[in-house]
Amino acid sequence: MNVLIVYAHPQPRSLNGALRDFTVQHLQAAGHHVQVSDLYAMQWKTTIDEHDAPQRDPSEPFHASLDSMKAYQSGTQSPDIAREQEKLRWADTVIFQFPLWWFSMPAILKGWVDRVYAYGFAYGVGEHSDTHWGDRYGEGSLSGKRAMLVVTTGGWESHYSARGINGPIDDVLFPIQHGMLFYPGFDVLPPFVAYRTSRVDGATFETMTRALGARLDSLATTAPIPYRRQNHGDYDIPALTLKNGIADGKTGFAAHIA
Amino acid sequence: MNVLIVYAHPQPRSLNGALRDFTVQHLQAAGHHVQVSDLYAMQWKTTIDEHDAPQRDPSEPFHASLDSMKAYQSGTQSPDIAREQEKLRWADTVIFQFPLWWFSMPAILKGWVDRVYAYGFAYGVGEHSDTHWGDRYGEGSLSGKRAMLVVTTGGWESHYSARGINGPIDDVLFPIQHGMLFYPGFDVLPPFVAYRTSRVDGATFETMTRALGARLDSLATTAPIPYRRQNHGDYDIPALTLKNGIADGKTGFAAHIA
Repeated sequence: MNVLIVYAHPQPRSLNGALRDFTVQHLQAAGHHVQVSDLYAMQWKTTIDEHDAPQRDPSEPFHASLDSMKAYQSGTQSPDIAREQEKLRWADTVIFQFPLWWFSMPAILKGWVDRVYAYGFAYGVGEHSDTHWGDRYGEGSLSGKRAMLVVTTGGWESHYSARGINGPIDDVLFPIQHGMLFYPGFDVLPPFVAYRTSRVDGATFETMTRALGARLDSLATTAPIPYRRQNHGDYDIPALTLKNGIADGKTGFAAHIA
Repeated sequence: MNVLIVYAHPQPRSLNGALRDFTVQHLQAAGHHVQVSDLYAMQWKTTIDEHDAPQRDPSEPFHASLDSMKAYQSGTQSPDIAREQEKLRWADTVIFQFPLWWFSMPAILKGWVDRVYAYGFAYGVGEHSDTHWGDRYGEGSLSGKRAMLVVTTGGWESHYSARGINGPIDDVLFPIQHGMLFYPGFDVLPPFVAYRTSRVDGATFETMTRALGARLDSLATTAPIPYRRQNHGDYDIPALTLKNGIADGKTGFAAHIA
């Protein structure tokens, strides 16, 4: 299959660099086609602004959302944005690899999401009616594709456990996995997380890559996280709250997993 | 008091611009001293890289964390980073104002956090021992200061309610409020959130600014979110999991609020 790796780390000679190289080689050895968007190496433009819609009317105030829609629809987006959208169309599976910085992604990767996820491409897709609130959360331009996070953290696994101080890793990653991946249609596979990355020796790296290799071997078959689809009966529309009878008594992120 | 507003929106002629102007005028009228870090207007450099430690040894691989520590300790950080740290030292209260993009902050603000929060300034502070895991989560360089988010969302309030599809707003903001603000020591006030921002008419703006004004008038007196402090007995160290007897049976973000 076609695998796109969106990779955000400033230093090739690093644990992240080694894991990225392992991933590319492992996937290619298995016969997959691989492209890498190495955001630091590409000097990816991180901040969305008026230059992203170069043919907009400069006498009007820049509007991040509406200008992205017009540029997307008219085929006049900044070429770097269009190229990344094309890679997404090409891909069957997208791997997002990054170190967890301040419980989120590095700015350069957030800027990839902010810019590549144009209005009309990743949101604002599909009809809005009393029964269908846009093609999102399980439907959308990227439906039929799979996505997986490969994340490294300095913190220990226990710090991200159910009662760990940083919050459970599934909750920390929910805004990304549910909000950035499931939203435009991806099936989201459970993440691959490497903890305590300041203490990785050869044996630990060996264990880590064996586990990662197994995840790469099963990209096509691993069951996705069963997030509830927005337009398939679990939510009242337009309130978009879980209906009575669905996950009764449950609140919070976990209620949105079937 | 001294109030720093860290502001991330590309367009002054916008709801965010109007709310920012209101905030500055309201605080100044009450006699406060106000500085604004308008990240788009400053053309803030968003991506952490080797240029942030201009006197580092270029023959060594760049290491985002260690190089930031060395530059911070030796007073050789990039001047834009040092200036923002100085503003933080000056401030009694910091307001972070931004539109919620993809359930997180705009990349330019994430890049402010990634770069300004140097090792030795916002993390890696204080002793690490069997009873004290660094000065963080309630202690640290920014302790004694208050922070508050002012956030706008396109989505409706119900979409961010306890059973809303986006997840509860308190959980969506937890990685920011707990992970980026409480972590280096801020007392975090409840956020001010303006929902459904595509439909703001004059009357709605009037209601919104009346509520925001009340929050600004009570910055010094509003009770902070009672996040549990790391080194004060609620957590096992070094596992950093809640002790037996603390929030028994509870898991997830809410367990870290006393």
